[in-house]
Amino acid sequence: MTAEIIDGKAFAARVRGQVAEQVARLKADHGITPGLAVVLVGEDPASQVYVRSKGKQTVEVGMNSFEHKLPADVSRYDLFALIDRLNADPAVNGILVQFPVPDHLSEAEIVARIDPAKDVDGLHIENAGLLASGQKAMVSCTPLGCLMMLRDRLGDLSGLDAVVIGRSNLVGKPMAQLLLRDSCTVTVAHSRTRDLPGVVRRADIVVAAVGRPRFVPGDWIKPGATVIDVGINRLPHEEDGGKGKLVGDVDFDSAVRVAGAITPVPGGVGPMTIACLLANTLTATCRVNGLDEPEGLTA
Amino acid sequence: MTAEIIDGKAFAARVRGQVAEQVARLKADHGITPGLAVVLVGEDPASQVYVRSKGKQTVEVGMNSFEHKLPADVSRYDLFALIDRLNADPAVNGILVQFPVPDHLSEAEIVARIDPAKDVDGLHIENAGLLASGQKAMVSCTPLGCLMMLRDRLGDLSGLDAVVIGRSNLVGKPMAQLLLRDSCTVTVAHSRTRDLPGVVRRADIVVAAVGRPRFVPGDWIKPGATVIDVGINRLPHEEDGGKGKLVGDVDFDSAVRVAGAITPVPGGVGPMTIACLLANTLTATCRVNGLDEPEGLTA
Ligand SMILES: NC(=O)c1ccc[n+]([C@@H]2O[C@H](COP(=O)([O-])OP(=O)(O)OC[C@H]3O[C@@H](n4cnc5c(N)ncnc54)[C@H](OP(=O)(O)O)[C@@H]3O)[C@@H](O)[C@H]2O)c1
Ligand SMILES: NC(=O)c1ccc[n+]([C@@H]2O[C@H](COP(=O)([O-])OP(=O)(O)OC[C@H]3O[C@@H](n4cnc5c(N)ncnc54)[C@H](OP(=O)(O)O)[C@@H]3O)[C@@H](O)[C@H]2O)c1
Repeated sequence: MTAEIIDGKAFAARVRGQVAEQVARLKADHGITPGLAVVLVGEDPASQVYVRSKGKQTVEVGMNSFEHKLPADVSRYDLFALIDRLNADPAVNGILVQFPVPDHLSEAEIVARIDPAKDVDGLHIENAGLLASGQKAMVSCTPLGCLMMLRDRLGDLSGLDAVVIGRSNLVGKPMAQLLLRDSCTVTVAHSRTRDLPGVVRRADIVVAAVGRPRFVPGDWIKPGATVIDVGINRLPHEEDGGKGKLVGDVDFDSAVRVAGAITPVPGGVGPMTIACLLANTLTATCRVNGLDEPEGLTA
Repeated sequence: MTAEIIDGKAFAARVRGQVAEQVARLKADHGITPGLAVVLVGEDPASQVYVRSKGKQTVEVGMNSFEHKLPADVSRYDLFALIDRLNADPAVNGILVQFPVPDHLSEAEIVARIDPAKDVDGLHIENAGLLASGQKAMVSCTPLGCLMMLRDRLGDLSGLDAVVIGRSNLVGKPMAQLLLRDSCTVTVAHSRTRDLPGVVRRADIVVAAVGRPRFVPGDWIKPGATVIDVGINRLPHEEDGGKGKLVGDVDFDSAVRVAGAITPVPGGVGPMTIACLLANTLTATCRVNGLDEPEGLTA
């Protein structure tokens, strides 16, 4: 048996299509165009690529994209003044400050400054609290993307045994909250877990967010389980003949022979992140305008 | 084999003793007396008993107790004005509004109005978010009490398998967060869980917060496990000859023969709640004054 390979690229394109459709309807019915503001501090080349790619996709789904580039030595005061302006600007529905920022700025302080209703990255303490209390929140894009893929494949998740390996604030913990909200029986495992193979073997759903290349072998997977591999690890060059290959936290080659479905790396969870950012911006726009939640795009 | 029976009454008295000691030190070293304000709306007899008991214990540990009684038909406006005053009052370190409140008032709105730093019941969304992100929070008293008892019996909880049955915002979910923070492998089970006996049988720690009398039988318990019974259920009068006996969510008589340790009902988790309220008030006082956290009394 070979697992279905969940095509994250195609899935993300479908999500962007849904967002575009609902943005068009928002414009037609209510004259509203969602806007996403991205703030980039400094000139980190990787961050510049991300920001450009986000801006491009934002425009492609029919939203307004606002890019703000600040010098690497911008003062905390000036950055906060910009965030305050974006918080107050009704044309801006989502605000994202591209991390990492230079060392003289605190990421926690920056996140705390953003209006939680515009925090499309889902990082604000208030959003963590809303999520933890089962209320409407802005949900961190990566776990939201994983949830969408799981629902798409499995339909109702209620009663399924789910294991999340990893307990970071960015991935593991919000993922566990989302699965619990969808009525899975959820186990959170981490580096102190004693019998990780045994824990993983019980699960209908395995989400791996560990940050260790090919950490979960196929013989830990229950036959037929759905495996979501969040990991993005670049192998040292010498191991793959100089290319620095990307691999996930799951050993794909052995897991694909046991699982019912699995996300590859690259091309699985990764492409969903920007799509979910756009979905969150649309959601924020609907909420602030008192409109229905965008169908199929929220937790 | 018979389980050790965890004496919640004695444990709570010990916690109150520790609080009293640290309050005395706070007064001696810094001239600070912690203050707890309790707001009671209306004349519900059970609530009056609770409030009186809280006030009495507050004074006994050397803190100031401020009781505010408002008529059942108090306006939202007047109640909020009082909360705002208490938020601003430096003599008040903890604020508790006794629930339930009359129907014309919203509990969620009331909680949101309280300064999160004075929210000694740990109900504010910001505290849920801080807890979920592993930061310093005010933690809901019942799960905090359960955690204290578990640490006392087991020492380091790291690596233990814990199952929490129940996923309420008040008990189940914060309990799971606390156990995860102490590095248990945590499973949250609930009404949609498929094989609850199997899930419970794997656990070194079982916390039952279900609200169903004697729901967990002894043969679900792994021999030697520590069982914390949060449930408080009053049996119908006819079942026990007219007294309306209190029982927990665990079938004590069968579980006590299997478990390593177990909390009884009554006399287990229940008495810890007010003790933890006092502990939280002390913690809030230390934090607002930039002093060290009170030892052994926080999550
Ligand atoms: N696809 C995407 O868009 C996307 C987005 C974000 C992250 N990622 C990737 O996802 C992975 C995880 O990211 P993260 O931010 O969650 O990482 P993180 O903050 O480093 O957390 C890693 C988690 O894995 C646990 N862990 C480490 N070693 C373990 C072991 N031997 N056994 C069991 N658990 C272990 C850690 O446990 P302790 O808590 O006990 O230390 C921790 O909770 C990384 O590869 C990252 O690059 C991808
Ligand atoms: N000792 C104290 O100081 C104290 C403090 C607070 C509460 N309590 C007591 O603790 C108990 C729980 O309180 P709570 O506020 O958490 O109650 P709650 O809000 O009613 O939550 C009960 C939880 O139990 C789950 N549940 C119900 N039936 C179940 C079943 N057949 N199998 C598995 N799970 C089931 C529910 O699952 P779903 O989410 O799927 O519905 C829910 O998550 C009550 O007896 C309460 O009186 C005691």
